[in-house]
Amino acid sequence: MSRTRAWAYLSRCVEGPNRQLQALLANGRDVEEIVQGIKRRETWVGDLLRATEARYQFDQSQQDLDAISRLGGRLVTPDDAEWPTNEFAQAFGFAASGLSDCARSVQDDAVAPHVLWVRGKNVRELVARSVTVVGTRALSTYGRDATRMLVQGLVGHQWTIVSGGALGIDAVAHNTALDCGGRTIVVAACGLDRNYPSSHTGLFDKVVQRGAILSEYPPGVTPARHRFLTRNRLAAALTAGTVVVEAAWRSGALNTLTWAEGLGKVAMAVPGPISTPGSLGCHDRIRSGRAQLVVSANEIRQLLSRVGEIDVDGQYEMLFAPNTVQSLSRNEMRVFDALNREGCTADEVAGAAGLTVSLSVHILVDLVKRGVVVRDGGKFKRVENEGKY
Amino acid sequence: MSRTRAWAYLSRCVEGPNRQLQALLANGRDVEEIVQGIKRRETWVGDLLRATEARYQFDQSQQDLDAISRLGGRLVTPDDAEWPTNEFAQAFGFAASGLSDCARSVQDDAVAPHVLWVRGKNVRELVARSVTVVGTRALSTYGRDATRMLVQGLVGHQWTIVSGGALGIDAVAHNTALDCGGRTIVVAACGLDRNYPSSHTGLFDKVVQRGAILSEYPPGVTPARHRFLTRNRLAAALTAGTVVVEAAWRSGALNTLTWAEGLGKVAMAVPGPISTPGSLGCHDRIRSGRAQLVVSANEIRQLLSRVGEIDVDGQYEMLFAPNTVQSLSRNEMRVFDALNREGCTADEVAGAAGLTVSLSVHILVDLVKRGVVVRDGGKFKRVENEGKY
Repeated sequence: MSRTRAWAYLSRCVEGPNRQLQALLANGRDVEEIVQGIKRRETWVGDLLRATEARYQFDQSQQDLDAISRLGGRLVTPDDAEWPTNEFAQAFGFAASGLSDCARSVQDDAVAPHVLWVRGKNVRELVARSVTVVGTRALSTYGRDATRMLVQGLVGHQWTIVSGGALGIDAVAHNTALDCGGRTIVVAACGLDRNYPSSHTGLFDKVVQRGAILSEYPPGVTPARHRFLTRNRLAAALTAGTVVVEAAWRSGALNTLTWAEGLGKVAMAVPGPISTPGSLGCHDRIRSGRAQLVVSANEIRQLLSRVGEIDVDGQYEMLFAPNTVQSLSRNEMRVFDALNREGCTADEVAGAAGLTVSLSVHILVDLVKRGVVVRDGGKFKRVENEGKY
Repeated sequence: MSRTRAWAYLSRCVEGPNRQLQALLANGRDVEEIVQGIKRRETWVGDLLRATEARYQFDQSQQDLDAISRLGGRLVTPDDAEWPTNEFAQAFGFAASGLSDCARSVQDDAVAPHVLWVRGKNVRELVARSVTVVGTRALSTYGRDATRMLVQGLVGHQWTIVSGGALGIDAVAHNTALDCGGRTIVVAACGLDRNYPSSHTGLFDKVVQRGAILSEYPPGVTPARHRFLTRNRLAAALTAGTVVVEAAWRSGALNTLTWAEGLGKVAMAVPGPISTPGSLGCHDRIRSGRAQLVVSANEIRQLLSRVGEIDVDGQYEMLFAPNTVQSLSRNEMRVFDALNREGCTADEVAGAAGLTVSLSVHILVDLVKRGVVVRDGGKFKRVENEGKY
């Protein structure tokens, strides 16, 4: 049995994210070894025994690989160079860090997918500079206009637009990206042969030409409520941040935003009229400080920009800064300035910096990676570097 | 010369707010004594000598009192029971406290008016439960709808709507209040004989029937740019908080919001579409944490509610709470919980409570008045009360 078939087997046999499977992989168990363990009902696979009870005897991995192949697609696994390793490591590493309450509330499903079924371009390249744009299915004229405006501005700077392929805001986001000659990814909640909703079949075929449609479910799997929620996690995990354009109370788009928060990504919401209920969910998240208010593509780009990148305001000097601290963007500097040598929690930093907890955590984790901040349990402090900045 | 004539003389002779005049009054100098000092050019009146240089010889106090009388109005002074003593003491006391950066930036004009020229009902009664609603003159259909919605909800709970009588949002606020049988105040930037803008003459006459139009300028004074800015301070000072409904960049309405902030009032902004520039100023204030995002009249009422009042959610038990701490509203409790025994700055409290600095300061000052918090320089701490709550 090939490794690819082993991954395909796991995809059907262990549906959706599975903490035990990820733990085994993280502990160095090989995928083929795990598959053998499941098939032979060995006790070391632990919870996977129960999770695979109903399906472990039916191996249709070759049929699934044939099916994706007929669709012009492929199976992408952690073995492949195309696997978005960094994005997943950052997202699910953050969720596991216990750094935010929100991450704790979503953590049961907060593990990486084991595989991605893909039609279209190279996923890793597509998501390297990407943002998730989601919203209500019941879109208004305003929601449509706002989505178009933001997506045009983002695509104009080569950002890939990731969304859920649903009716409403999602469709406007995908279509606008394509209309502007940009790249877009549909994250599906079902097998790629399903084309849900079916009226979007044409859209999905166009998306594949310049972007991708992907799913963690093998061909044949039907859309279902729990899969939409799991899909939302994946849409948030793939990108640097999530923008909700229009969402009333209880909109599914807010679930994607919660995931972005829980995965340490930048959570953003677009305000809108108060005279209709369409933006109530966005306003609620802004009001409670769980999402940054954003009104333009420039602002989104600025929030998502990384150290060393050319800033929206053209701060070219950053590229030539003599040390890391001097190269920090404005928001990064606000976070850095909020720290002291005794250590602060992410909540304290957010309060002092005047940013959302989610964005502060995102920046803190990044500053740790760059070596100017250290994490000590639940606290962060500046790296001792007397006189250097 | 009667006291009333002395006040009227000062109103024309010392235009606009004057720190030196307020200092003399605060130090116990009588109004008639001050007028004599000015007329006789006595050195103890200090800066007032220069401020009154051009006008001190022309006493037209009787003509001004006759003029306001012909308009069916009156002069209201600090001697009168109608003077809004509490509102001004809170506002200008806060500005003088140096508690916020914003207050420092506006403090040159941040002193009470010396008099109010009034047509209409009792000012003190009108402002006892009042909110300032302002916005752009270039209103959109959205701005009109949003203003109507909010004002209807506020007037339905007997809140007086204070605004500037200008074209646009101001006019919609006044008109909606009247249409709903509510009370409204126009704060004018010119003498009450001027009716600026003249197209609002009919509106002002209606306002007087159930509310008031007032100005700190005597009859005959024309509207001018600096008077609009000074007027904005007065509109913010009279009420518990200011809501900006629609304001692009550099809208004068934002100046009123800055005043609300600087005077320790609750600063609020209404979000709107991002597809037009009409709400850019509101979004900017929300984003920077300088204004609370509000989307409904209920929310505004909740932010402005005082301890002991029946809460929007019907928390009747507050009225019967066994002690002050147990009677705190939700936002008050957030502020109280953010405090410790060592003392926190208003900024720290705002960060920990997840509220704007402006609202936190407003609540802190109120809690000090109620005896559960003490102020110690720039810091606030809980009153020591071991085991009582």
